[in-house]
Amino acid sequence: MPIVGKVNNITIDKCTKMGVVFKDVVAACEVVNCNGVEVQCQGSAPTISVDNTSGCQLYLSKDSLGASITTAKSSEINVLVPTGPDGDWGEHSLPQQYIHAFKDGQFETTPVSHSGA
Amino acid sequence: MPIVGKVNNITIDKCTKMGVVFKDVVAACEVVNCNGVEVQCQGSAPTISVDNTSGCQLYLSKDSLGASITTAKSSEINVLVPTGPDGDWGEHSLPQQYIHAFKDGQFETTPVSHSGA
Repeated sequence: MPIVGKVNNITIDKCTKMGVVFKDVVAACEVVNCNGVEVQCQGSAPTISVDNTSGCQLYLSKDSLGASITTAKSSEINVLVPTGPDGDWGEHSLPQQYIHAFKDGQFETTPVSHSGA
Repeated sequence: MPIVGKVNNITIDKCTKMGVVFKDVVAACEVVNCNGVEVQCQGSAPTISVDNTSGCQLYLSKDSLGASITTAKSSEINVLVPTGPDGDWGEHSLPQQYIHAFKDGQFETTPVSHSGA
């Protein structure tokens, strides 16, 4: 599903196996309660949040590389970033597991990285 | 539900509003697909993992303070640790949201902490 032009906000809720392509989003793009979705940002987006979602391929553009991606209760989130001028993509899987250890009176959280990314 | 003696492994799967008290676990205690459970470890446990669970109160003992707690796809996980000799508990909520930012060719993950813990 292509979204044309500049929009303020995009929310993709309860979708399975869906693809969304958009150019610019002013505020945030949210993916919630989804399953196996593909989202491509061709312009800029300050914030992308993924909540309660299993499986999301997130394609960023050069202008949205600085996006802050927030995840909660999600797994299998991959972010694809453009590498080089020839249209290649670099794939990075976001951590989905975290270790919390009690140290000096509080918990320290470390993401568990399964890939070499 | 009390579990007496030393056991190798405990798995609490698909439980809602349930309480489990155990003393020692040799390998790991796992909480998966649960909703609002209370788990108390009175002895030692090397690993406690919480997966796909919303709402878990985890009571540790002095001997299990060193446990490594792993979470994935979970929210509202609170860990209660004994403070002082008078049986008081200190409550720590584990982060459930994470921010991923692209830096120097890879993603850096930071837990979002809502509490002052």
